[in-house]
Amino acid sequence: MIFLKANSPMSKLSVAIYGASGYTGFELVKILLRHPFVEIIALTANANAGQLLSDLDPALPALPLVNAEQVDTSQLDVAFLCLPHAASASAAQGLLNAGVKVIDLSADFRLKDLATYEKWYKVTHPCPELLSSAVYGLTEFARAELRGAKLVANPGCYVTSVLLGTAPVLQKGWVAGNIIADSASGVSGAGRAPKQNIHFVEVAENYSAYSIGQAHRHLPEMLQQMRLWSPTGQAELVFSPHLLPISRGILSTIYIPLVGAPTLADIHLLYEETYRGEPFVQVLPAGQTASIQHTVRTNRCSIGLTLVGNLLIVTSSLDNLVKGASGQAVQNMNAVFGLPETTGLLP
Amino acid sequence: MIFLKANSPMSKLSVAIYGASGYTGFELVKILLRHPFVEIIALTANANAGQLLSDLDPALPALPLVNAEQVDTSQLDVAFLCLPHAASASAAQGLLNAGVKVIDLSADFRLKDLATYEKWYKVTHPCPELLSSAVYGLTEFARAELRGAKLVANPGCYVTSVLLGTAPVLQKGWVAGNIIADSASGVSGAGRAPKQNIHFVEVAENYSAYSIGQAHRHLPEMLQQMRLWSPTGQAELVFSPHLLPISRGILSTIYIPLVGAPTLADIHLLYEETYRGEPFVQVLPAGQTASIQHTVRTNRCSIGLTLVGNLLIVTSSLDNLVKGASGQAVQNMNAVFGLPETTGLLP
Amino acid sequence: MIFLKANSPMSKLSVAIYGASGYTGFELVKILLRHPFVEIIALTANANAGQLLSDLDPALPALPLVNAEQVDTSQLDVAFLCLPHAASASAAQGLLNAGVKVIDLSADFRLKDLATYEKWYKVTHPCPELLSSAVYGLTEFARAELRGAKLVANPGCYVTSVLLGTAPVLQKGWVAGNIIADSASGVSGAGRAPKQNIHFVEVAENYSAYSIGQAHRHLPEMLQQMRLWSPTGQAELVFSPHLLPISRGILSTIYIPLVGAPTLADIHLLYEETYRGEPFVQVLPAGQTASIQHTVRTNRCSIGLTLVGNLLIVTSSLDNLVKGASGQAVQNMNAVFGLPETTGLLP
Amino acid sequence: MIFLKANSPMSKLSVAIYGASGYTGFELVKILLRHPFVEIIALTANANAGQLLSDLDPALPALPLVNAEQVDTSQLDVAFLCLPHAASASAAQGLLNAGVKVIDLSADFRLKDLATYEKWYKVTHPCPELLSSAVYGLTEFARAELRGAKLVANPGCYVTSVLLGTAPVLQKGWVAGNIIADSASGVSGAGRAPKQNIHFVEVAENYSAYSIGQAHRHLPEMLQQMRLWSPTGQAELVFSPHLLPISRGILSTIYIPLVGAPTLADIHLLYEETYRGEPFVQVLPAGQTASIQHTVRTNRCSIGLTLVGNLLIVTSSLDNLVKGASGQAVQNMNAVFGLPETTGLLP
Repeated sequence: MIFLKANSPMSKLSVAIYGASGYTGFELVKILLRHPFVEIIALTANANAGQLLSDLDPALPALPLVNAEQVDTSQLDVAFLCLPHAASASAAQGLLNAGVKVIDLSADFRLKDLATYEKWYKVTHPCPELLSSAVYGLTEFARAELRGAKLVANPGCYVTSVLLGTAPVLQKGWVAGNIIADSASGVSGAGRAPKQNIHFVEVAENYSAYSIGQAHRHLPEMLQQMRLWSPTGQAELVFSPHLLPISRGILSTIYIPLVGAPTLADIHLLYEETYRGEPFVQVLPAGQTASIQHTVRTNRCSIGLTLVGNLLIVTSSLDNLVKGASGQAVQNMNAVFGLPETTGLLP
Repeated sequence: MIFLKANSPMSKLSVAIYGASGYTGFELVKILLRHPFVEIIALTANANAGQLLSDLDPALPALPLVNAEQVDTSQLDVAFLCLPHAASASAAQGLLNAGVKVIDLSADFRLKDLATYEKWYKVTHPCPELLSSAVYGLTEFARAELRGAKLVANPGCYVTSVLLGTAPVLQKGWVAGNIIADSASGVSGAGRAPKQNIHFVEVAENYSAYSIGQAHRHLPEMLQQMRLWSPTGQAELVFSPHLLPISRGILSTIYIPLVGAPTLADIHLLYEETYRGEPFVQVLPAGQTASIQHTVRTNRCSIGLTLVGNLLIVTSSLDNLVKGASGQAVQNMNAVFGLPETTGLLP
Repeated sequence: MIFLKANSPMSKLSVAIYGASGYTGFELVKILLRHPFVEIIALTANANAGQLLSDLDPALPALPLVNAEQVDTSQLDVAFLCLPHAASASAAQGLLNAGVKVIDLSADFRLKDLATYEKWYKVTHPCPELLSSAVYGLTEFARAELRGAKLVANPGCYVTSVLLGTAPVLQKGWVAGNIIADSASGVSGAGRAPKQNIHFVEVAENYSAYSIGQAHRHLPEMLQQMRLWSPTGQAELVFSPHLLPISRGILSTIYIPLVGAPTLADIHLLYEETYRGEPFVQVLPAGQTASIQHTVRTNRCSIGLTLVGNLLIVTSSLDNLVKGASGQAVQNMNAVFGLPETTGLLP
Repeated sequence: MIFLKANSPMSKLSVAIYGASGYTGFELVKILLRHPFVEIIALTANANAGQLLSDLDPALPALPLVNAEQVDTSQLDVAFLCLPHAASASAAQGLLNAGVKVIDLSADFRLKDLATYEKWYKVTHPCPELLSSAVYGLTEFARAELRGAKLVANPGCYVTSVLLGTAPVLQKGWVAGNIIADSASGVSGAGRAPKQNIHFVEVAENYSAYSIGQAHRHLPEMLQQMRLWSPTGQAELVFSPHLLPISRGILSTIYIPLVGAPTLADIHLLYEETYRGEPFVQVLPAGQTASIQHTVRTNRCSIGLTLVGNLLIVTSSLDNLVKGASGQAVQNMNAVFGLPETTGLLP
């Protein structure tokens, strides 16, 4: 029997979404409405307080949006934070003090090193004392810490595609040198606020690189985890994001120089063993490469493997709003509360 | 011999574009750079003064953008106005006083009736005394007045597609009742400023109606011209615009009840006679319907004819930025100065 | 207690999909895999027999595709037919003889009049004796006949959008004259077999009309039902389909001349009453128009109402593969077996 | 004075396009119709002989398509071949024998090594004796040989983007190891014949890798030229093509390990010197990366430079149908006949 709350078998978790007016908030609402053990108690969106969610997107249900101050946190079991960085950490602090578990979709608790965070995000962290206790929620590699965790840092979208695609060879110590991750993302990754560079006419019929090399904020997050996995503690990465003329989905093509001359069969076996039994990681048969349509609107990450000499080429795809954000957040919530991880999620 | 200026055979026209930072401005620059008798003297964009055009769109040349006040109007032969309504009329007034011919791409001089203008655009017209002398530049039907004209009101994009598609039967008196124009436009018609409804994610994989019925500002402009053409002075129209997930192009499907039981052959002949020799109006063979790809990036309007009982269905397509805006503006400039109308334009 | 089979409470229905290698087949698989009372027994695809479904689309599960002859029909409760016309009717006949209920997604049993069928589809009907007993499965209007039905003709995609958008005023006798339905569909409606006109490059950045007027096969299907609803037995329709550069979704903008001068409030009330309690028909608040994003990937039809004089303009959107095909097919299966209609479907 | 033909100053070149029914043929027609020194004499398309070009694409002019056997080659100055490989070489042989200059857009004369050609293209070459005399027409690096050449092998689309992006550092001997070219192409690169993988629904909302590593036919073509440029004769390359959901354009993101620790300023200077005065190669200012919209529908290749440690990241974009095919073919024709290279082309 599953006890979601003390003394309350199978009762529902009371959930709030902070920052429900963006694409990750929308996706969370869609997922959580299908989740059998969740009751959405409150959706906050300070700039839209008083409106209905369906006013923002008529495909969504007519749920009220409130100001964060209106939420009675004493009723909450868990809060998802889809807020801008810094704002998210501030909100987390209050919620944790009120005994609410927090799953933070912002970057605020992903980087363990305060200086690295403040360098890349150019803000003073509101509560650096929480950094060390936050669980970095790449679910497949964090289950032990997730169980019962109070604060979960949900990984970035690009990050999830690159880390799941490189974990097996990194952990095994097979990586010989610098990794190059050439990634392409749909436009929803840039958020819902209108900007010139995501105007329809600027994106349609186009494809462009941005922040390539070592200029994107997801780079330090990838490196932090890669170095934890690497037996030597060393890892280097060049990361080149691109903007695709589609709404959702990420494909990362990752170039990894290997040591020890493993065969493709060796590598394939390693990936299959690493991800055996994982409901949301699919290692494709040899000879197949990942594509965005394989995974869009699912919580799955699809991984293809190609070997050229000693260079492993991994293709890794996922939906940036699902496994790259809100789906993984729900997977993490399930892990925190001891629910089957697939509850409410499409494999 | 063509005299563009008094005593100056074949010299070039000195041209300024006011409001060069939007899509119609961009398109004008591209067309005018190919025009053998034009020299661009100035591009204004008050919010971007000091920048280069290539800073806004790297596919464009590195021409300087200036504040409108910096333009020496004494050097100009002609100015194209791509400004918001009301701002456009104000600028026109000053330019006309300086002896510069004006081709206005805004709505400010399209409607002859001041009250209608002020009702639909919700502003006080800065110079209503100019309304009567402005030439309504649907080129194919305005050549006589265009020659030497001082002020040209360039028609709206939807309007051009609907008027060219209905002119022959309206002029002939064959229209029996209310016309319905069901139109679909690419997103560039909504302008370059970022807004929620033209965010890539809102438009992609979508198709939606807006301002349908009698709520769109292009309706009174269509009706004004239709009633001038109609032998009875009467015409009624329902106009239903839709937003397409493409960057440019308009297709109007127009339903016209007819009197007198003409055959499709009769109607086809009427359209061919009306547009015989027109370089920019293509009457498709019977059985074909217009499509946006027929006309995009050209100054052509393509017209298909289908008859069902006494209902004529016209499909009319054009590029909203070319024949629907900047291309027709250049066609009008050519007509004003007695140049071959096709100069600088792709048929 | 629900008895799906005699003496077998809550056991699962054994289902086969004939013609599982097209888009409606794919969509049926996705829906039925989520359906708690269904077990998929067989997927046929004669040209792909021996392959896995995932060979055709890696996002689908690795289910085997077999030749229709390999299916043991004695095990089946219900078969969905996604076959070409004529082939579908032939298959239906055999299945019905074997006691299997049939839900046919082809056009073979939609038209009650044999001559009309043979004129539009240009084939000899294999089993015209079945036409009279087939239930036309526009679910919202066919529940009584659906319960226990042996053969269901699932409506066409365009047809569903137009009929749901016009039923209330037709049934009420408020329609004064010819209806015009101007519809736009995503490309999946044209099927999965490669053809020149659905090559990516032909469709992208394009929008075009085809078979407009009275040339599309969905026209007689619409008229048949409209005349059944009309108190006078009369109805006339012009239908103009267009091809959108998107994968899925239909928006119909329907122009209906009315008698009796009802107000928009009257009409809105009529639609709300007609569809009160319907889980899959959404009447939008006055002032809103339907858009494809409202309904895509759901089984919902969304309806907006606008009144201009005595002309009602209905916007009606749905997903052509869901409510326009496979979703409605499952809704019909639910109705046939007395299951809650929403089982397995997203509202 | 320009002599296009002996004794015939400024007369026009008589041109035929063989294989005019595909996208490169269409693009050639559009370009050549704007070319002041060209007269199109014949368009061949054996499967469409007897039809008009406008029957295939109504946006094109109504020029007749004939069978190749109907062309009077004695009238021709130059022929463009847009035929499948092997068919192209056969046609070339006959045309050269008739004294017609040939610009071949197929792969038949690109590879100098017969065995390499036959391995990758899996056919017997019809006329291997012509391989040595064919000029490899990467125009910017082949001008001397192009002047007066009889047979020009027009480079592949991906190849042009990668070679122009790597030439300066390769020639300079600055490349320290394996190059990785991660490229993305619009769908027109896959040709006009309908196939499952370029069905609109398969491509839209998708992004996928194919033939990655060392499996694509453009790889040996790139390596052949890279090794000619490299001072050591050595070069290694991994090439990973991807399919974009757009109609046209290529962006290559190229990772090049460097020796000798040049600064970004050094590299930028090297690229600027290499391409100084080139009308169709644009080296972007430091800090900018190339995008497809920079170059689409032009004959330009746009190059951006980023340096990360000793890894140079080049972004290189062009239009696969223009600089990647038909535009460069016309540029080559201009070079062959001593015309200004920009004639008829948009910079």
